[in-house]
Amino acid sequence: GRSLCLTGSAPGRRFVSKLTGEARATALKKIPSWSEIEGRDAVKKTFMFSDFNEAFGFMARVAVKADKADHHPEWFNVYNKVDVTMSTHDAGGFSEKDVAMCQFMDKIATK
Amino acid sequence: GRSLCLTGSAPGRRFVSKLTGEARATALKKIPSWSEIEGRDAVKKTFMFSDFNEAFGFMARVAVKADKADHHPEWFNVYNKVDVTMSTHDAGGFSEKDVAMCQFMDKIATK
Amino acid sequence: GRSLCLTGSAPGRRFVSKLTGEARATALKKIPSWSEIEGRDAVKKTFMFSDFNEAFGFMARVAVKADKADHHPEWFNVYNKVDVTMSTHDAGGFSEKDVAMCQFMDKIATK
Amino acid sequence: GRSLCLTGSAPGRRFVSKLTGEARATALKKIPSWSEIEGRDAVKKTFMFSDFNEAFGFMARVAVKADKADHHPEWFNVYNKVDVTMSTHDAGGFSEKDVAMCQFMDKIATK
Repeated sequence: GRSLCLTGSAPGRRFVSKLTGEARATALKKIPSWSEIEGRDAVKKTFMFSDFNEAFGFMARVAVKADKADHHPEWFNVYNKVDVTMSTHDAGGFSEKDVAMCQFMDKIATK
Repeated sequence: GRSLCLTGSAPGRRFVSKLTGEARATALKKIPSWSEIEGRDAVKKTFMFSDFNEAFGFMARVAVKADKADHHPEWFNVYNKVDVTMSTHDAGGFSEKDVAMCQFMDKIATK
Repeated sequence: GRSLCLTGSAPGRRFVSKLTGEARATALKKIPSWSEIEGRDAVKKTFMFSDFNEAFGFMARVAVKADKADHHPEWFNVYNKVDVTMSTHDAGGFSEKDVAMCQFMDKIATK
Repeated sequence: GRSLCLTGSAPGRRFVSKLTGEARATALKKIPSWSEIEGRDAVKKTFMFSDFNEAFGFMARVAVKADKADHHPEWFNVYNKVDVTMSTHDAGGFSEKDVAMCQFMDKIATK
């Protein structure tokens, strides 16, 4: 077996900081279809699906992923539309954890 | 076998009108934990759960029910909170279809 | 508005018979990736996904569709595998309702 | 921050062994509604719900929990019935990870 040591704010949770400067700009380039939000350190995107069934299939996958990552979206749904906002509460803003969730959503929405 | 005739805007969908006057007041009394919305013929309620897992279990049940009834919520979720708005697009306002969905949500959220 | 008349075993549910002979053979040709089951008038298929997340996204969409159609699968899941059996209880065997559900599953699994 | 060291078969995953002897007997007493399986080191239980909607709500919650714990059920569903088998593949049998998942299912099914 392997041995693993972590240092962080909680057992099993990687500590994350909000991104700033160059690192923030680089991170945003990885998720070009997401928009920055006026007056808040967060990103948002509207996903459109063919119907509610497809929208809910997307939401179910995001739900499973989000709880596993302990990083949950703020999202609004009506019928085939899902508006998602991502920000990292513990970090006080946009972080690498958001990038990972946004990339996951982009990947599964376009399949 | 039985014979059934429907007249409405679409095969298999019961035509519904927005509620007014006495019928509207009576309907609202069936869902006392829901609030009317300022400037819109709709009702809303905030559901709080113990965690995301329980919130998503609620959302999954509402999703299955809503698509079966062809009557979908407008809802916002973050972690253990689900904000729901119900109105009937085809009827231009609050209808019996909303009452049925609100009652379903009340029933499954308090179990 | 349109007028619609139905005759069947229940309001809102189309009566379905199990398929036989030529009609059955034609129906099976529409779902070539499904197999007949030895000793039972039903069809089955194993769906493989990349992981549990993708498998559950599939199951969530099938769940919403199945309850809307009032036609539910018999299914087994472990991790990324979903084994589905479709037969129509009310009809005593394989029917057009199964074909529709199988085609739906084929469509969403290969997207 | 705290420092945490793990030794196990994979980063972030606690190593688990199958339970034997007294520890196994004690664990089984925590989940008395589950049955041992003939010829296999696993436990099973049949959950019955009022309808498919309630069964799927249960499955959705178990799905979210299972992927978070990286410990997935073997389960079969038809309409309002969910047959679950739990065993720990990596441990080659029934382990503490199964106890935790069984207890979670017992808790949410009886609410």
